[in-house]
Amino acid sequence: MAELAPEATETAPVDPANWTCPAPLRDQPVVVMGHGGGGALSAELIHDVFAPAYGNPVLAGMGDSAVLHLGGARLAFSTDSYVVRPLFFPGGSLGDLAVNGTVNDLAMSGARPAYLSAAFVLEEGVELAVVDRIARAMGAAAEAAGVTVATGDTKVVEAGHGDGVYVTTAGVGLVPEGVDIRPQRARPGDAVIVSGPIGLHGVAVMSVREGLEFGVEIASDTAPLADLVAAMLAVTPDVHVLRDPTRGGLGASLNEIARASGTGVRLQERAIPVPEAVANACGFLGLDPLYVANEGRLVAFVPLTEAEAVLEAMRAHPQGAGAALIGECVAEHPGMVVVSTGLGGTRVVDLPLGEQLPRIC
Amino acid sequence: MAELAPEATETAPVDPANWTCPAPLRDQPVVVMGHGGGGALSAELIHDVFAPAYGNPVLAGMGDSAVLHLGGARLAFSTDSYVVRPLFFPGGSLGDLAVNGTVNDLAMSGARPAYLSAAFVLEEGVELAVVDRIARAMGAAAEAAGVTVATGDTKVVEAGHGDGVYVTTAGVGLVPEGVDIRPQRARPGDAVIVSGPIGLHGVAVMSVREGLEFGVEIASDTAPLADLVAAMLAVTPDVHVLRDPTRGGLGASLNEIARASGTGVRLQERAIPVPEAVANACGFLGLDPLYVANEGRLVAFVPLTEAEAVLEAMRAHPQGAGAALIGECVAEHPGMVVVSTGLGGTRVVDLPLGEQLPRIC
Repeated sequence: MAELAPEATETAPVDPANWTCPAPLRDQPVVVMGHGGGGALSAELIHDVFAPAYGNPVLAGMGDSAVLHLGGARLAFSTDSYVVRPLFFPGGSLGDLAVNGTVNDLAMSGARPAYLSAAFVLEEGVELAVVDRIARAMGAAAEAAGVTVATGDTKVVEAGHGDGVYVTTAGVGLVPEGVDIRPQRARPGDAVIVSGPIGLHGVAVMSVREGLEFGVEIASDTAPLADLVAAMLAVTPDVHVLRDPTRGGLGASLNEIARASGTGVRLQERAIPVPEAVANACGFLGLDPLYVANEGRLVAFVPLTEAEAVLEAMRAHPQGAGAALIGECVAEHPGMVVVSTGLGGTRVVDLPLGEQLPRIC
Repeated sequence: MAELAPEATETAPVDPANWTCPAPLRDQPVVVMGHGGGGALSAELIHDVFAPAYGNPVLAGMGDSAVLHLGGARLAFSTDSYVVRPLFFPGGSLGDLAVNGTVNDLAMSGARPAYLSAAFVLEEGVELAVVDRIARAMGAAAEAAGVTVATGDTKVVEAGHGDGVYVTTAGVGLVPEGVDIRPQRARPGDAVIVSGPIGLHGVAVMSVREGLEFGVEIASDTAPLADLVAAMLAVTPDVHVLRDPTRGGLGASLNEIARASGTGVRLQERAIPVPEAVANACGFLGLDPLYVANEGRLVAFVPLTEAEAVLEAMRAHPQGAGAALIGECVAEHPGMVVVSTGLGGTRVVDLPLGEQLPRIC
């Protein structure tokens, strides 16, 4: 971090033409919105600031949750802060995300989520009825996901130093014996499966934020995925990778998996389930559905031999009814994700620098 | 919550003469600073909003951390958000508090803290060097406390919706067999012990916030207390209650214990270790040291027969060098804390409505 000049306060604008710039931290002495976007800037913040500061190998695993050994138990442990704006949107609220998001991060290591913590940072002046509504959404979501909110905290900051309600949840769960799910385990030959239509959460939030209507109401897909994961593991414990493509969407998740495992990913564009309403909205907004956040979807890498059976089990589950085989893991172009377009061409799906839609979760 | 009128947005001023008002939520349809103060308003928020919303008995335990059974392990689980202002102060920083505060919440159930999560909410425009400094303070504090930061998250909010850096940590640790420490276990006859001089953290933060000098620099007492707790448990596993008197100070912690256990607490004013500099600063600022936050102290309820041995073990530990017997738990005036003054009189130490010093941790 010697290159950081504490006295420098100018912020350089992010150049969209430069989205693969390898080390923006060096040119950006201040935090920009993209540092919270789950893309390259977020990865650099972890790599250049947090990992060296904490100096430990667990964090470097870069999974959605850490898997720890404690008291004889295999424990999954994860946290996320939720700052979505607006607080309420079609299909859910910050409260739903705060539960489902952390439940899903635990589930992506194969864990059965058990307990959550909930810490609120409230802005002075926010209506207590709003806090109550968020808390009730959390309680209902926790019940639906089969987890208990076991501990919490509340801080209040002055008006103008928050945005109504921020919630940070952490969660713990148990990882069954014999299950070893992490991005490093992707290998050539794996089938790449997505659990349902993509892009709904991002478009739902964007539509209400911008006051847009697209003919039909598009609702967030926010949902807990641990049951679906359990159904998949019942078919085979040898699921290699699971990821919930939230910030940065499917594109960011697949890039992280490709980089962590040193494999390539090849997608078939026609196989990717993009609802027509999402495609239309993305066209209007200038967004790529591959980078739009989901809050109730997972992407799975499973051995090709198990793919059909896993797909069948997924489609029998409400959260996996729209599951689809969208591509494969390959030995070529390690660390890179490409998509074969409908016209027979191929394009690279790069890791986004930041998030197309800030504060999406 | 039927009495909440969502359309009402006026906030009634808090009347300091009315600090024991039993139900301020009913008169306050909006969040006020005191809701984050760890006093009566915080307790009401938990009782009236969060506990009904989450609908579970674990939360109602009201300990500094929840003790859970998971995979055969007795797990302590806790979270806190840290919004202290300024970020850096004599003796520490937000980073130190974010580690030590959660480590100490775990230790107050007798647990050996093991792993932390760290979630940042960054304000757009904050210097990366500041984030780096906070993260390094967290890394150093984690190493000192013997815990690992295992997982994390970063979100960024627009300028004007944060205050540089907010950090939420959660932690897990193991509670040894035979240890059962919780506020409900206080009983008449227990000795009440404090681990060292009180009021240092609050006065340290206040002095730099207000640009005040009191002749000598007063440094925060922020420190990890799990080792001290282990030394106490080595004397006797039958420690009844532990609490780190942070927000709301010793006064709030003792009131919570008295109420949870249905006992009374009687303190000897002369026995309470208040450093001269703290007393002078509190006199100048109009504060009561009993309500000023500490970040490296604990208060313990132990059987009187064990008190001398526990005190001896505490004084042999760096974090307990200034340990003192300050009072006793009594059957009289259940739920109430009184202090015998030096002049032979007695005064009630009530639960504060909010916090004398907002954003102290």
